[in-house]
Amino acid sequence: MSGRKVTRQDLRDAAEKYKNWGKWGPDDEIGTLNYTSPEDIIAACQLVKKGKVISLALNFDHTGPQGAKSKYPALGRTNPIHTMLRTGTDAYAGVLDHRGIRAADDMVVMPLQCGTQWDGLGHVFYENHMWNGYDCREVTTAGAQKCGIEKAKSKMVGRGVFLDVARFKGVDALEDGYGITCDDLDRTAKSQGVIVRRGDYVVVRTGQMEAKLKAGSWDGYPGGDAPGFAFETLAWVQRTELAALASDTWGCEVRPNETEPGINQPWHWITIPIMGMTMGEIFYVRELAEDCAADNTYEFLFVAPALPITGAVGSPTNPLAIK
Amino acid sequence: MSGRKVTRQDLRDAAEKYKNWGKWGPDDEIGTLNYTSPEDIIAACQLVKKGKVISLALNFDHTGPQGAKSKYPALGRTNPIHTMLRTGTDAYAGVLDHRGIRAADDMVVMPLQCGTQWDGLGHVFYENHMWNGYDCREVTTAGAQKCGIEKAKSKMVGRGVFLDVARFKGVDALEDGYGITCDDLDRTAKSQGVIVRRGDYVVVRTGQMEAKLKAGSWDGYPGGDAPGFAFETLAWVQRTELAALASDTWGCEVRPNETEPGINQPWHWITIPIMGMTMGEIFYVRELAEDCAADNTYEFLFVAPALPITGAVGSPTNPLAIK
Amino acid sequence: MSGRKVTRQDLRDAAEKYKNWGKWGPDDEIGTLNYTSPEDIIAACQLVKKGKVISLALNFDHTGPQGAKSKYPALGRTNPIHTMLRTGTDAYAGVLDHRGIRAADDMVVMPLQCGTQWDGLGHVFYENHMWNGYDCREVTTAGAQKCGIEKAKSKMVGRGVFLDVARFKGVDALEDGYGITCDDLDRTAKSQGVIVRRGDYVVVRTGQMEAKLKAGSWDGYPGGDAPGFAFETLAWVQRTELAALASDTWGCEVRPNETEPGINQPWHWITIPIMGMTMGEIFYVRELAEDCAADNTYEFLFVAPALPITGAVGSPTNPLAIK
Amino acid sequence: MSGRKVTRQDLRDAAEKYKNWGKWGPDDEIGTLNYTSPEDIIAACQLVKKGKVISLALNFDHTGPQGAKSKYPALGRTNPIHTMLRTGTDAYAGVLDHRGIRAADDMVVMPLQCGTQWDGLGHVFYENHMWNGYDCREVTTAGAQKCGIEKAKSKMVGRGVFLDVARFKGVDALEDGYGITCDDLDRTAKSQGVIVRRGDYVVVRTGQMEAKLKAGSWDGYPGGDAPGFAFETLAWVQRTELAALASDTWGCEVRPNETEPGINQPWHWITIPIMGMTMGEIFYVRELAEDCAADNTYEFLFVAPALPITGAVGSPTNPLAIK
Repeated sequence: MSGRKVTRQDLRDAAEKYKNWGKWGPDDEIGTLNYTSPEDIIAACQLVKKGKVISLALNFDHTGPQGAKSKYPALGRTNPIHTMLRTGTDAYAGVLDHRGIRAADDMVVMPLQCGTQWDGLGHVFYENHMWNGYDCREVTTAGAQKCGIEKAKSKMVGRGVFLDVARFKGVDALEDGYGITCDDLDRTAKSQGVIVRRGDYVVVRTGQMEAKLKAGSWDGYPGGDAPGFAFETLAWVQRTELAALASDTWGCEVRPNETEPGINQPWHWITIPIMGMTMGEIFYVRELAEDCAADNTYEFLFVAPALPITGAVGSPTNPLAIK
Repeated sequence: MSGRKVTRQDLRDAAEKYKNWGKWGPDDEIGTLNYTSPEDIIAACQLVKKGKVISLALNFDHTGPQGAKSKYPALGRTNPIHTMLRTGTDAYAGVLDHRGIRAADDMVVMPLQCGTQWDGLGHVFYENHMWNGYDCREVTTAGAQKCGIEKAKSKMVGRGVFLDVARFKGVDALEDGYGITCDDLDRTAKSQGVIVRRGDYVVVRTGQMEAKLKAGSWDGYPGGDAPGFAFETLAWVQRTELAALASDTWGCEVRPNETEPGINQPWHWITIPIMGMTMGEIFYVRELAEDCAADNTYEFLFVAPALPITGAVGSPTNPLAIK
Repeated sequence: MSGRKVTRQDLRDAAEKYKNWGKWGPDDEIGTLNYTSPEDIIAACQLVKKGKVISLALNFDHTGPQGAKSKYPALGRTNPIHTMLRTGTDAYAGVLDHRGIRAADDMVVMPLQCGTQWDGLGHVFYENHMWNGYDCREVTTAGAQKCGIEKAKSKMVGRGVFLDVARFKGVDALEDGYGITCDDLDRTAKSQGVIVRRGDYVVVRTGQMEAKLKAGSWDGYPGGDAPGFAFETLAWVQRTELAALASDTWGCEVRPNETEPGINQPWHWITIPIMGMTMGEIFYVRELAEDCAADNTYEFLFVAPALPITGAVGSPTNPLAIK
Repeated sequence: MSGRKVTRQDLRDAAEKYKNWGKWGPDDEIGTLNYTSPEDIIAACQLVKKGKVISLALNFDHTGPQGAKSKYPALGRTNPIHTMLRTGTDAYAGVLDHRGIRAADDMVVMPLQCGTQWDGLGHVFYENHMWNGYDCREVTTAGAQKCGIEKAKSKMVGRGVFLDVARFKGVDALEDGYGITCDDLDRTAKSQGVIVRRGDYVVVRTGQMEAKLKAGSWDGYPGGDAPGFAFETLAWVQRTELAALASDTWGCEVRPNETEPGINQPWHWITIPIMGMTMGEIFYVRELAEDCAADNTYEFLFVAPALPITGAVGSPTNPLAIK
């Protein structure tokens, strides 16, 4: 497909080619998360040799990426607003003592996709359908009646595989607009001595987030141009039978998209509603990258539970790589 | 201490006796989470034999426990409010098509301790101090400058031990006001063939939550009377050197408290700011209880990452027991 | 219509009979608020003789009516959550001094129809249309592109007329299920010596709110049974050419509704989308009632600005009766 | 005082000189709002000659001034987040029909001082005190127990006087850093043929907001440099005995402040806690300015009710000038 734009017909063809609807029965709501078997989980636990836990989450706060500028329209996401319901200053001032306990309490207001997060299967629709063929009208202002993120509350556990494409390519960060190919992924894996298998949780590093952090500005990150998966990697996702795929960018796929006008995020059109693939975004992978480079081990136990907010189409997460 | 009320002098004595300040250096902000060693994590992973993942979280939604009645004053916590920023009905109506993608998005407003959650070390103060001797004024309306939950972002991984005290006692649920003793905990462990060790994550079942769920009403649960840890179990917490302790009740410790008037949640006064113990509350343990009873295995890999909201004094969590 | 249920055919007939679409041009977004002329405003100001201001708002806080029980399904509205961003206790603790000013700040999370409020013209649809024939798809998750409450930002000023129907009927409060008739309204007005005229803001007292406040419980109030306007009063609304109508109940119209199964709030179906009538709900009228009874003057200057939240379908308000 | 910096001693002197504590009794919580008498309200209503209503509110939405850059630290205020609880697209999709009514509903999350707003008397402290000598610890995370904005729910009605200082000075907008003097105010009033009297609501135009709107960017507005009241105008506020003072800037007083390091917003230190003056900020006055210039009438009925959010230290408002 290189050399030309993705068209609506390409999307229709891809939808036909990659459709997993019905694969796990007509009532399935978690898609490719089904690929991970109990045996895979047992095996993944055996990978833990150092007892080291690496968080792949950005802290959730007002320094997050939302609100930064990009050349695309904003999506109404804001950074988390954390407010206190009781404080230590209240305690110090003596105003809590009538309660018999000096305790602080707090609250958050946050878009569920404002930081390190999972895209649930209710997040993207293909025409009037969502994953497994459910009607898109199952996602109303009352939330997702089908494929809510809470359906995956005991998933997101398995073998993690880290593919440091930027490192493989010998750069600090891939360039905006660079479309990662199937070949890139295969050769990165090979160079790292790791093989992606069915049921894996694959985390891919472009280096873009680190570049933004280094620059001290998120401008261009949320919804902006980025390196990311080329449309052709749908084939790679299908072939590897991975459980979920995550990256360090805002939206996983390459931007500007490789599409004709009027089509935005074509890879999302297929991965989520057609393939049933849960996707991780805004993963912070710097420490993991350093650790994997140091011990030359790119596989680990991956545990990244979603917060089971009923009917949610996404969830913040604190993904843990346990090595 | 049985047979008499806990007094302020008892609290002062306990504060002296159980104080862990400085144990992990003057800059420590995570307390007993330090007990878990890399070796403990490696060993915990070895416990995974079935590849089964059990979530210990209630779903986060409007059916949660907040807002239910109790005879004590409310704390200003509400159930989560989940609202949509874009929907499948928008998609169906065609109003998203100018974006080039049909996608839903959402948001949550939630007190951080409204459901299954961790109490962070900024949550409770002893007089004017918090864990490790930090001044309580470190917790302002801007959040916790010390001991924010984000400091524990790569913790909450280790060996989980489940103590089903209700089952040991032969009841569906312990009675409100029943204070679980050190002896109860030791005998439950013994009967289950498990030994609590340094660095463990211990989850205790009273059965109270299941009783409320069965009754179809949370009345009496949030802040109400409950079975829970007796004040004397501070000694047990100290002796076992556990990493964190969680339960299926609103507040872990027995209510009504065993105290003189004016002292509320005395066990919290000591565990959090004095011992530096992170505490899990509102854990949903029914499925875990059934599984442990069935395979007679009360230890497992426990992974319950906090959401690293900067400066938060608590965090919702989706704790996973992996067996 | 008395003696029988309102049917879908009755609704269709009413929609035909009372339709004001186009009356103020094809681009109108404020409906009957147009009835109030500059002369009406000048005349209303002349009514002010005592210089007394009476607020018709309940305070907005956690003691509000939301969350109380009724026999109908809840609407997802909660009471306001007011949280502080900085406090006097912060000031006392000295933690604000680096700012050079000791100041408190705060925030609110609130459904726009949680307390004393206006229903805007984007609030209710008749089939696939809203006021003036606009497509209901103008109200998306991005808000109301047509008829947002901000379009009325310089309205809600005019002659107020208070109709104390409960007092006229000689009761503290009308009974739940009592449908106020055209005759009730006319006779109340006559007994009070007041005539409702084009462009007036009419506030009707049922006494229900005061009964709930006296009882110390809102149970049955939000969405519950209530006295209120009978379906037939559509004719009265049309005849009087009032600007807006408000009441002290949750939803203005009588409940249980006088309808066949499957039709909820039939009066709303017509008043808002068909007639273009802005509606006030949860107005606190006790002090106004006492004042009007005392000085026997039931007309006044009414000023109740909506908060111009762009795209909102309702707005909290602090309505003022100025006498 | 011109020509030198305001010092802490100047603040102490001003606090002594302008202190109104006790003036309206020891229990007063509304300060200078007391100046407006019933007779003043009656007279203000007589000013209405055209029946024209002009809103002085910016719309509350994501295009508001919060989040824009300035060279000063941010205050944690964000623009309003308006989300829908039900939509017309839901209606169109048929998912509301089981309710028997097609209705939209919505919600807002907003800092109370994010847009056109009143600073209540709980907003600023002088050392450990708030207005009327109340202890600053009356403002806790539970809100303001004293001087909450709800105490003013039947105020903010009176004679409005508009002082178009920018116009008087012959400029589109006063320059950032320009301190409006007593003489400026007196001469503007004189040139406009208006006299400020006890109990008036005075609105002052600097033109800064219009310059920002024209530039299409709020950068520099929230918390940034601005024209505004010089410290010396405390004398003018005292002399005129006005009820409340408002402006079109973020913070009314001139910025950079005329102070020694470590003192921020010195005029606020005195006006709010010492004088008990409620202050209006971020007022949109362009239309009012044009109207007053056109009819050469700078006085009107002013009605700007606060939303009575219990314990709030500020409130959004939709101020109306009625001419």
